[in-house]
Amino acid sequence: MEQKTKVAVIGYGNIGRYALEALEAAPDMECVGIVRRNVTEPTIKGYKVVNDIRQLGQVDVAILATPTRKVEEYAKQCLALGINTVDSFDIHTKIVDLRRSLDAEAKAHGAVSIISAGWDPGSDSIVRTLMESLAPRGISYTNFGPGRSMGHSVAVRAIPGVRDALSMTIPVGTGIHRRMVYVELEEGADFKTVEAAIKADAYFVNDETHVMQVPCVDDLNDVGHGVNLVRKGVSGKTHNQLFEFNMKIKNPALTAQVLVNMCRAALRQQPGAYTMIEIPVIDMLPGDKEDIIRHLV
Amino acid sequence: MEQKTKVAVIGYGNIGRYALEALEAAPDMECVGIVRRNVTEPTIKGYKVVNDIRQLGQVDVAILATPTRKVEEYAKQCLALGINTVDSFDIHTKIVDLRRSLDAEAKAHGAVSIISAGWDPGSDSIVRTLMESLAPRGISYTNFGPGRSMGHSVAVRAIPGVRDALSMTIPVGTGIHRRMVYVELEEGADFKTVEAAIKADAYFVNDETHVMQVPCVDDLNDVGHGVNLVRKGVSGKTHNQLFEFNMKIKNPALTAQVLVNMCRAALRQQPGAYTMIEIPVIDMLPGDKEDIIRHLV
Repeated sequence: MEQKTKVAVIGYGNIGRYALEALEAAPDMECVGIVRRNVTEPTIKGYKVVNDIRQLGQVDVAILATPTRKVEEYAKQCLALGINTVDSFDIHTKIVDLRRSLDAEAKAHGAVSIISAGWDPGSDSIVRTLMESLAPRGISYTNFGPGRSMGHSVAVRAIPGVRDALSMTIPVGTGIHRRMVYVELEEGADFKTVEAAIKADAYFVNDETHVMQVPCVDDLNDVGHGVNLVRKGVSGKTHNQLFEFNMKIKNPALTAQVLVNMCRAALRQQPGAYTMIEIPVIDMLPGDKEDIIRHLV
Repeated sequence: MEQKTKVAVIGYGNIGRYALEALEAAPDMECVGIVRRNVTEPTIKGYKVVNDIRQLGQVDVAILATPTRKVEEYAKQCLALGINTVDSFDIHTKIVDLRRSLDAEAKAHGAVSIISAGWDPGSDSIVRTLMESLAPRGISYTNFGPGRSMGHSVAVRAIPGVRDALSMTIPVGTGIHRRMVYVELEEGADFKTVEAAIKADAYFVNDETHVMQVPCVDDLNDVGHGVNLVRKGVSGKTHNQLFEFNMKIKNPALTAQVLVNMCRAALRQQPGAYTMIEIPVIDMLPGDKEDIIRHLV
């Protein structure tokens, strides 16, 4: 029996909790501890909680279950210690910059960093790339939802005056989405100011966005989500080739599963930073290569 | 402008013809000639036709558009010359053996061989592997058709007494298929003997197979095909995660496009033999890595 991969979970929000479950379900992984800024209890579910990853002994991979805007800072700290990292950084327009920055840091310390590993960016990126390769000319549309966008919800919660928030993504076809944002305000906060801040945020500025005040966001919460990815295009010189990928999933559970798969894949790459489309899909699964080929090719 | 990749097409049946079109449509590829056992004309569509690949000068990659059972022999000849190969070998149960055999040959000559590169095995294998990684426990079903199976049709045409044949794949759900085989017999051939030979063939022995004699197979021919790939399973400890991939495509055009994509990918791998699930999807596309990441991740 090979030794299990030692994984630390940094951050213990929604994704951190599900990452623990996915690690427990994986045959080849073990969680060696949780890293939090403020240690309020010495253990969670039997796992050691620390505020510095160096207190956990040997760590092969760190799962960065932090807000997306904290990813670069935490990743660099881990990589500098020679610890591989995986994250689900989800600001599409900034992925290339993050990859460059972490690639240099990873190579300097002989480590691997897999970035933007969730379902979009992430597994959807693999499907989009595959579809484009199958019909190089044509148009793809990614239609999200209906469902709660974690990245968007976190972004709203960071706005002053917001106690809790839920951003729903509503597909209106051909890759266009409406954002329905439900906010619970702190006492004394001004709704119009909050609404304007949300609409000006990089997460929302390009979409039709509606902001509504509700007394209790938690009453609206459902983590179901989905995607419909379509491409119609040309293979060689043959038109009307049709491709479609659909998912109906519980969002944080899938993101956490992808992060755990990427812990495995990280150990199989050369030093550097990678997006998921740069990783062979076989590296995401445990077990013998020939067995996987026999079973899935 | 980088130099174009020099590709030879071995075999000029259905796939060979579409491979030429896909090469002409690719911005970074050029066909340097066609290899046929019997050279009946010096050029086809302006491309040199030879019976020995060494007559074509520099060749970076050979597309093996041969019957599946000839793949190993032709691949070994090319690899021994240091020429990379791509094929669409489609006997699922023999892929691991072919990979082992060509891996040794490829490594001995510093070349790359990408095997079973079509849509199934091929792009479907990538989707199956991805889906399994997203929900490691669960059940996947691959439902093919309705459509003409090229591999099955070729296998029937190899049976003595068969002048032409068409094998239709009919999905009956949960990965079960019916085979509807239409045969045009040579004069004097015995239908019952042919029918028994078809049903005993490795391609058909596990499926419900119906064989029908028709006066002209060509009148039935339509190269449309499709697939419906589904998985329902568990991400971490979260059940009822639902995934689906659908395609409606013209079969040889897609296979040829995949083969051309793999010519590109072959130049980006270390020596050895690979199935498509071992190749990062980004390697299937032309162009700058960061541009692809910006566009598709």
